[in-house]
Amino acid sequence: MTLPSVDFSALACPVPTEDDRITLAHGAGAGASARLFADLLHPHFANSALDVGHDGAVLDAQPGRLALTSDTFVVNPLEFPGGDIGSLAVHGTLNDLAMCGARPLALTCALVLEEGLLIATLERVVTSMGAAARSAGVPIVTGDTKVVERGKGDGIFVNTTGLGAVAAGIDLRPQRVAPGDLVIVSGSLAEHGIAVLSVRDGLGFECDVRSDSAPLHDLVAQMLDAVPEVHCLRDPTRGGLGALLFEIAGRAHAEITLDEEALPVAPAVRAACELLGLDPLFLASEGRCVAFVPEAHAARLIGALRAHPLGRGAVIIGRVAVGPSRVAVRTRLGGKRLLALPAGEPLPRIC
Amino acid sequence: MTLPSVDFSALACPVPTEDDRITLAHGAGAGASARLFADLLHPHFANSALDVGHDGAVLDAQPGRLALTSDTFVVNPLEFPGGDIGSLAVHGTLNDLAMCGARPLALTCALVLEEGLLIATLERVVTSMGAAARSAGVPIVTGDTKVVERGKGDGIFVNTTGLGAVAAGIDLRPQRVAPGDLVIVSGSLAEHGIAVLSVRDGLGFECDVRSDSAPLHDLVAQMLDAVPEVHCLRDPTRGGLGALLFEIAGRAHAEITLDEEALPVAPAVRAACELLGLDPLFLASEGRCVAFVPEAHAARLIGALRAHPLGRGAVIIGRVAVGPSRVAVRTRLGGKRLLALPAGEPLPRIC
Repeated sequence: MTLPSVDFSALACPVPTEDDRITLAHGAGAGASARLFADLLHPHFANSALDVGHDGAVLDAQPGRLALTSDTFVVNPLEFPGGDIGSLAVHGTLNDLAMCGARPLALTCALVLEEGLLIATLERVVTSMGAAARSAGVPIVTGDTKVVERGKGDGIFVNTTGLGAVAAGIDLRPQRVAPGDLVIVSGSLAEHGIAVLSVRDGLGFECDVRSDSAPLHDLVAQMLDAVPEVHCLRDPTRGGLGALLFEIAGRAHAEITLDEEALPVAPAVRAACELLGLDPLFLASEGRCVAFVPEAHAARLIGALRAHPLGRGAVIIGRVAVGPSRVAVRTRLGGKRLLALPAGEPLPRIC
Repeated sequence: MTLPSVDFSALACPVPTEDDRITLAHGAGAGASARLFADLLHPHFANSALDVGHDGAVLDAQPGRLALTSDTFVVNPLEFPGGDIGSLAVHGTLNDLAMCGARPLALTCALVLEEGLLIATLERVVTSMGAAARSAGVPIVTGDTKVVERGKGDGIFVNTTGLGAVAAGIDLRPQRVAPGDLVIVSGSLAEHGIAVLSVRDGLGFECDVRSDSAPLHDLVAQMLDAVPEVHCLRDPTRGGLGALLFEIAGRAHAEITLDEEALPVAPAVRAACELLGLDPLFLASEGRCVAFVPEAHAARLIGALRAHPLGRGAVIIGRVAVGPSRVAVRTRLGGKRLLALPAGEPLPRIC
């Protein structure tokens, strides 16, 4: 039987705008929520799974193992040179999947909006998010929107959770890192951290650094095709390369020695770090990965990295050896010092 | 080669406590973050996937289709009669999977903590969350913790994302709801909403209502085993039964008529609603489901529901008919009125 087609949106109450800002009614689950989704979110995310409009998405089965990863993004400010919280939330979670060796299948998007947020700001972020997901070829299949009162949030927080498929034979884990591995980074460090700080309220400074935020799944697929022997991949986000190496040294029960001279840091980033008294070793990148690979395969891996636009700056920066779980830095003058882990970043909310 | 076993936690700096409260350093990705995870979160969530300590979890492949669902919980206050934000975040997402007809496989947990949060509060919430997940038999396999400055959040926000497996032959979607379906609810309505409001700052009132928050996946498995012909399942959370029926009427292009006299609402909930001037039709439940099923299978479904502890109060509350996309209520006196969808709940942050 064919029923008359009725436009459901006409049934809903008009969205209360209050100067085109988000109101608590947008989070209440009834008319205004439905309109916010239909008018603002859905057009940017539309895909067959999301269009069903159920409480969750149902996806086709996948051969092989699955990877699941989740991150909430609270970056401040919401927009920065080279990206915004929307593109960052897509790239960050795609990259965590990539670090598991997974091909991305689907993303979720859960927003916490602060009452009073300009709808135009939300629309820019959602547009950027949709574009980043489409450009990566990964659908945003389900999500959620909550609104909290003014002063109980900060504009927009975005959680993205990613589901991916891990091909047979791929086993990337910190525990596989072993003495004899070389440490390779795909490009220059700390650009995301400096780009965000350069536009932060009360800190803003002139500099030409743009965030390196980018999706790494395609680069990683190319790396693993060429060198399935990679032991572990990690992206140096919050806490930077330094925190990452500390964690790997701990889980692998080995000593990692970094070659200070080899660390790729752009001159503008180095200058900004000196200005702010920050160490680029502990600042975030959002489009770089660090690979741990047996020395015998390192040259091949460098070749695979440099053949991809996002890996052109790949270099060997260190080596894993038998020793206590710690990180040492070989200085330019040939000395060796132990790296100390800071108790906390002086400037939070980088991602 | 056997390497000496080193306790990684001994390498990290001590957690800065400031009167046993969360500080920004807990969110910075370095020492304090690692300690917070190791000391407070990991003990409650431990499982083999989480223990790997990677950027994401790798899980075994599953036969059949997959379901993915995501929700952020911002309930205020964090603790309420019958639950807290931790158990609610587990139940809510398990229930969204169940509404897709999915058996839950894994959950993620992403926290946004406000600087100054008492660590004891966080520990209570995480304990409750771990207990709810264990009791449901579903591991929390990966997650994330961010900290925002005082006044930029509100204690704790929790995102949970759920992955599930959908058995062959199960196809639950709003679009399958059709004229001739009966509407069945698994138990009494609006208890979660009233329980939360009864302890809210500036509103608190004396009442004996406890949240109905509960995981429905086991009940739903029993329902679908008995009656695979179910067309659609939904849980009446934010926006309540009323918003749910509006949405289904729209997507199914049909008219739903509710029988007012049949609606199960406990006397204490009815009294609280009268006191507050609220309609229980638009208040949230967190442990109930609404089923749309062809009339021929309704008695069997009621039987399956009542055989489960969480479905003892199951009743038929309405019927789907050919007609415009709208919801009508047949009143106690035999009249019929059209239900109007409120623009927003007067009291947000119920989940």
